[in-house]
Amino acid sequence: MEPFGRVTIIGVGLIGGSLGMELRARGLAREVVGVTRVEETIAAARARGAIDMGTVDPVAGVAGADLVVLATPPGLVVSMAQRVLPHLRPGTLLTDVASVKANIVRPIEAIVRQDGVVFVGGHPMAGNEGQGIAAAEPGLFEGTVYLLTPTDRTAPSGVKRLADLARSVGAVPVELSPDEHDRTVALTSHLPYLVAAALMRATATAGPTAGPAFLGATRVAGSPVAMWGEICRLNQESIQKALQAFREELARLEEAMTDGDRLGEMLEAARQARLRLGTHRSAGGSSGDRDRN
Amino acid sequence: MEPFGRVTIIGVGLIGGSLGMELRARGLAREVVGVTRVEETIAAARARGAIDMGTVDPVAGVAGADLVVLATPPGLVVSMAQRVLPHLRPGTLLTDVASVKANIVRPIEAIVRQDGVVFVGGHPMAGNEGQGIAAAEPGLFEGTVYLLTPTDRTAPSGVKRLADLARSVGAVPVELSPDEHDRTVALTSHLPYLVAAALMRATATAGPTAGPAFLGATRVAGSPVAMWGEICRLNQESIQKALQAFREELARLEEAMTDGDRLGEMLEAARQARLRLGTHRSAGGSSGDRDRN
Repeated sequence: MEPFGRVTIIGVGLIGGSLGMELRARGLAREVVGVTRVEETIAAARARGAIDMGTVDPVAGVAGADLVVLATPPGLVVSMAQRVLPHLRPGTLLTDVASVKANIVRPIEAIVRQDGVVFVGGHPMAGNEGQGIAAAEPGLFEGTVYLLTPTDRTAPSGVKRLADLARSVGAVPVELSPDEHDRTVALTSHLPYLVAAALMRATATAGPTAGPAFLGATRVAGSPVAMWGEICRLNQESIQKALQAFREELARLEEAMTDGDRLGEMLEAARQARLRLGTHRSAGGSSGDRDRN
Repeated sequence: MEPFGRVTIIGVGLIGGSLGMELRARGLAREVVGVTRVEETIAAARARGAIDMGTVDPVAGVAGADLVVLATPPGLVVSMAQRVLPHLRPGTLLTDVASVKANIVRPIEAIVRQDGVVFVGGHPMAGNEGQGIAAAEPGLFEGTVYLLTPTDRTAPSGVKRLADLARSVGAVPVELSPDEHDRTVALTSHLPYLVAAALMRATATAGPTAGPAFLGATRVAGSPVAMWGEICRLNQESIQKALQAFREELARLEEAMTDGDRLGEMLEAARQARLRLGTHRSAGGSSGDRDRN
């Protein structure tokens, strides 16, 4: 892809910081500007190679940017977009990285000027248990899925540029509508998180017998809580539907426990589905702690 | 520990085969005899270094044994114990490796002669997604928990010998009563398996968005089904209680989704509990596929 000129990343944490590292290491941007909430993060992000320069002022940070990445916690994305939009040049590509889309894409599209900034919702399905710039790492996106959520109002050129960027950092871009995204990710990300938290809470008294299945199932419960609270608020309806679908399947399995053959068939269908998924996306060197999203 | 003379492993699969490899590689036994169901497994197990010699005849296999390990699928352990018990010498240590204990320990204790064989129930909480001798691997027990389930009828000398063996293969022996074992493992092993299967079934239509949390939570659903069916049958009551406790916690989390502060507190408690567990037991080189039990 043709490199960006100035890229401004607002929120230089796990995802924003890792993206900055890739942009700089791979020469995908002429310069990377970081916007942080606290001054100290600027030095830390520079030391880690995630940004060339930083500021705590979003308006100053987006000046002259060709690409602006909103990488704040999900609950702050829309207000930050509102704050910086008047200061973006026409033609600037604006995107976010939040794990919830409809309640972010819809309000941002309502304020993006038709003739000006190009907004494309994005969600890189990458992460680890950590948070902040300290948890950022090169290679975080390698082999992961990068969801793009264009609507009928999204300029195809913007989608193409973001897809090229996703590929350039090693990810596989996949397009979904914002609503499809939220339904799907409720099932494959938000539901497993709540299930992991419930498993931890249900086994509080279970003692020292955590085997590999338990550790794998619950690892994501160790990730920072604040973001998940915002996700639950912003994607409540889809998460409730996902919980309902899950509860029904669990009840079906429990009913079948008295009928060995039927239980075996149901478990075998689950097994085949799991084997089709493979393990490659989690089998990398640092797979053991890649467990957010 | 003082090495065993002849060790007979009945069922040279993932666990039995891995144990044989450790016994031989570490000089913990003078010789390891394997009893298999099919003739071909004998050659495969010898080639993999899991046994010195093998037979398909359990009675011939246990002749002269100082330690007999019942490593068949859980549903066959009691009948196999019945078959070989009359042929064991007084003083022989008999153990099993099944993930269910009360329904195995109770019937075996009922037939073990008081003055003869010493039976100690065991459950190494180790494994991977595979099955059979092909999936056996040295180091499988390293850093894992090896549960021992003595009762008031169990000779302490037998418990000590099995605990020494567990330590010698790199595991941490932990004693629980058979009933405690079944309650605990229902929560920390059988429940996560059923949850993983239900997650797979609930997300059948979710498309290509499986992130690391989902892959981690569902990996165990890819493990062979037959053993899990037997576990569900043999530990049904405890599993139903575990499912109930889990359902209640999940419902509490869902209720709290409309109350950000309360949800945050509940998720934070889960997070702290998960962080206390650590990752060391799943962070080894082959952690990515250590997911049975």
